[in-house]
Amino acid sequence: MAPDPVTERYRVNVPLRWSDMDAYGHVNNVQFLRLLEDARVIGFEDWFGQDRSVLSEGILVARHEIEYLAPLLFRVPPIVVEMWATKIGGAGFDLAYEVRDGRAASEGGDGDTIYARAETTLVLYDFTTSTPRRMDPDLRAMLEQHSGAPVPFRWRRR
Amino acid sequence: MAPDPVTERYRVNVPLRWSDMDAYGHVNNVQFLRLLEDARVIGFEDWFGQDRSVLSEGILVARHEIEYLAPLLFRVPPIVVEMWATKIGGAGFDLAYEVRDGRAASEGGDGDTIYARAETTLVLYDFTTSTPRRMDPDLRAMLEQHSGAPVPFRWRRR
Amino acid sequence: MAPDPVTERYRVNVPLRWSDMDAYGHVNNVQFLRLLEDARVIGFEDWFGQDRSVLSEGILVARHEIEYLAPLLFRVPPIVVEMWATKIGGAGFDLAYEVRDGRAASEGGDGDTIYARAETTLVLYDFTTSTPRRMDPDLRAMLEQHSGAPVPFRWRRR
Amino acid sequence: MAPDPVTERYRVNVPLRWSDMDAYGHVNNVQFLRLLEDARVIGFEDWFGQDRSVLSEGILVARHEIEYLAPLLFRVPPIVVEMWATKIGGAGFDLAYEVRDGRAASEGGDGDTIYARAETTLVLYDFTTSTPRRMDPDLRAMLEQHSGAPVPFRWRRR
Repeated sequence: MAPDPVTERYRVNVPLRWSDMDAYGHVNNVQFLRLLEDARVIGFEDWFGQDRSVLSEGILVARHEIEYLAPLLFRVPPIVVEMWATKIGGAGFDLAYEVRDGRAASEGGDGDTIYARAETTLVLYDFTTSTPRRMDPDLRAMLEQHSGAPVPFRWRRR
Repeated sequence: MAPDPVTERYRVNVPLRWSDMDAYGHVNNVQFLRLLEDARVIGFEDWFGQDRSVLSEGILVARHEIEYLAPLLFRVPPIVVEMWATKIGGAGFDLAYEVRDGRAASEGGDGDTIYARAETTLVLYDFTTSTPRRMDPDLRAMLEQHSGAPVPFRWRRR
Repeated sequence: MAPDPVTERYRVNVPLRWSDMDAYGHVNNVQFLRLLEDARVIGFEDWFGQDRSVLSEGILVARHEIEYLAPLLFRVPPIVVEMWATKIGGAGFDLAYEVRDGRAASEGGDGDTIYARAETTLVLYDFTTSTPRRMDPDLRAMLEQHSGAPVPFRWRRR
Repeated sequence: MAPDPVTERYRVNVPLRWSDMDAYGHVNNVQFLRLLEDARVIGFEDWFGQDRSVLSEGILVARHEIEYLAPLLFRVPPIVVEMWATKIGGAGFDLAYEVRDGRAASEGGDGDTIYARAETTLVLYDFTTSTPRRMDPDLRAMLEQHSGAPVPFRWRRR
């Protein structure tokens, strides 16, 4: 029996800040990308463990795509970012995200609300030589453990 | 003879902040979206003049797509964001951007460098009734004056 | 026997963000004030519980004073902000903070390091009438439970 | 005849960003420190010209003190930060600021409003040896050209 793809997803608790709200009183659209940055930092530390070089010496953001689906209000409990690889190439990979409430209704939450869906293209890079670098087998294996279906964007242009 | 589409583009000077740099010493990828937010605020005040209601009472960001093409280093002179409408619908529009150096070589700049290309989908909204609203003819006419070709994204997914 | 004033202090765990670092690779001095803002939001929700009106409808920051004592590097585990009232007046109060590592040496931390000391003057305000307002007895009682000695600033001007 | 000390002050135009506003619709108190950071970066480039080493290789912020005097609303025209040295020591200096509207009444401004007063203690530092460094005569001479009276804080603690 196949695992439930939803429950298989990697989940990162990402705390909001009061200052993520803009003058409209909602978490600002740009700050969503900031939350995804934090999700990557927290998640990659877990995925890649001691091999921090993956993070600190060698990944560039080449592209973001994000859709906003529901307004997010500030609260103290963290939101949940689900995160998975959607495309693993020779010198980079795509990372997908869903930003969710993450709290059960019994906790005052609404676990089903998806605030945003997004995708980031990351390129492996060697900062010492300023050139792209090949993905090594260990990194590929780790990403494959966290891979999933493409993001179901509603409004992607063609 | 058709006008040169490049020189027709609307150009906004957007100042950087020293804090736009991240620990890598480059303008952070998320801050690019912040610069585009400022370009919209400055540009829309000019485009829509006194009719500030367009801005303050009724536009939601529904989507962003951005590609990073070259690293941007902090400097005191503003960067230039070129900005134009690429799709004008019944209740919203797409806005395209190119982030450029904007200084001639004689000024120590490199006018040809494009740091990023991006596109934002904006939806007209009535915050008092919490419903989308129709684009009125004046807004449409103004956007048509500033419309142009789709963004030539390199890595758009299909 | 008097309680140990240190262990009496209210402690708030405040997560860092990778973006709190500036181009020098340290948590930026301005971001320390942001961390203190978060400490207040989290702490006040706990101190004032259901009576959110204290927070959302009526406190203005009138003043900050902060001293930086040691460089703070980004890490995923939260820092600890100790927070206590140092002066309780008729229409406002001073809040003191120490920003600490908060992890025991056995956890890879250095619980004794103090990164910064700071003090904020807060004024009670009635936004509906745009006037200062008097402190009510409940608020005063709560603040007195969390009060302590003045901040031992090293470089305060006289 | 002595020069007017007010008109002698060094004035830096500092652009706001829409995102400087918080959920209350005012420029956030923490963002004021961000504006002062920008004032230093812009001003020091002018004061210290080619000798960028003063900025990039050797100044630490040791302390901030700031008082908020009037709410600042977002607008596209820059605010004005007046900036002057108040104390010049052997290994550092204090920098004072007043944050002003800067526009004459005829331009829709209110040149007399002071939004905030602040003071920063800066320490000269040699990052290569991680030690404080002595102020050289050229830097001292430049600071003396931009020196002025202490900040008239209203609420400074004693």
